[in-house]
Order: sequence, then structure tokens, then C-alpha cells
Amino acid sequence: MKARVHVTLKTGVLDPQGRAIAHALGTLGFDGVQDVRQGKYIELDLAETDKAKAKSAVDQMCAKLLANTVIENYSIELVD
Amino acid sequence: MKARVHVTLKTGVLDPQGRAIAHALGTLGFDGVQDVRQGKYIELDLAETDKAKAKSAVDQMCAKLLANTVIENYSIELVD
Repeated sequence: MKARVHVTLKTGVLDPQGRAIAHALGTLGFDGVQDVRQGKYIELDLAETDKAKAKSAVDQMCAKLLANTVIENYSIELVD
Repeated sequence: MKARVHVTLKTGVLDPQGRAIAHALGTLGFDGVQDVRQGKYIELDLAETDKAKAKSAVDQMCAKLLANTVIENYSIELVD
């Protein structure tokens, strides 16, 4: 089973990487880019075949390692 | 209009960050993690309201700045 995890900065947390991208896009001539936020995208290949167990395991992985829950949100999507 | 961009390493390209995550998950006691790949997730807030024009603009942004198309793939998703 595959799990797709998105880790994004919480609203209100400054995103310097996103700012840098927005600025760079501006200098490249792309107008109309109002805001950019950069997050992480992680694909996990799991041996687990039970969806509920896989979800719970990935949830723990996110809480313990993949995301800093003080400043980041995460979302999990499971694919067979 | 919002655009969501996923930038992922092409198959076959070594992903040291993904390897490091897989190793760290192993040491934390998470068994059954067969593979991990890490990519980038970028959210763009665009002034453009025309879907086709926005798609084309974001496509150019990816090719010029957001992705290194030699080793990375990108996918674009537009949200109203």
C-alpha cells in the first residue's frame, strides 16, 4: 500500500522559501503571483495491506518524524 | 485561482533524503516501510482567473524555475 503525505506550514507561519520563489518568479517576468507556500510531499511504500492500520502507522510517523506539529500541518492519503 | 504543484524525482534518480527518512523510520521502530521518496509541494496563489492561461503560466514556471526537468517530474492541479 502506498501513502502520500503532504506537510505544509500552518497559516501565519512565515515561509521564507515560498517568499523566495515568489520573488524569483517576479524577476522572471511572471506577474500576478500573489502568494507562494512551499511544503513537503512524501511518498511511502508500505508492506501493510490493512488500510486502517496503515493510516494509523503513517499518522504516528508524521507526528514523530515527518512533520513538526508545532508549525506544520500534515495530511495523509492512502492508495492501494 | 490556486495552483498546486508537485515536484518529484524521476524514477531511477537516487533520493538520499527519502533514504534518510526510511532509515530514521526504521530506527524509530516502524517496520514495513519499503521505500520513501521525498518531493516538493508548492501552492501558488494566482491573480489569473482563466484556467487555460493559468495552467500554461504555471507550466512555464515549473519548466523555468520550480522543477529541474532533467531529474524531476512535475504535475499541476488547478483549484478555483
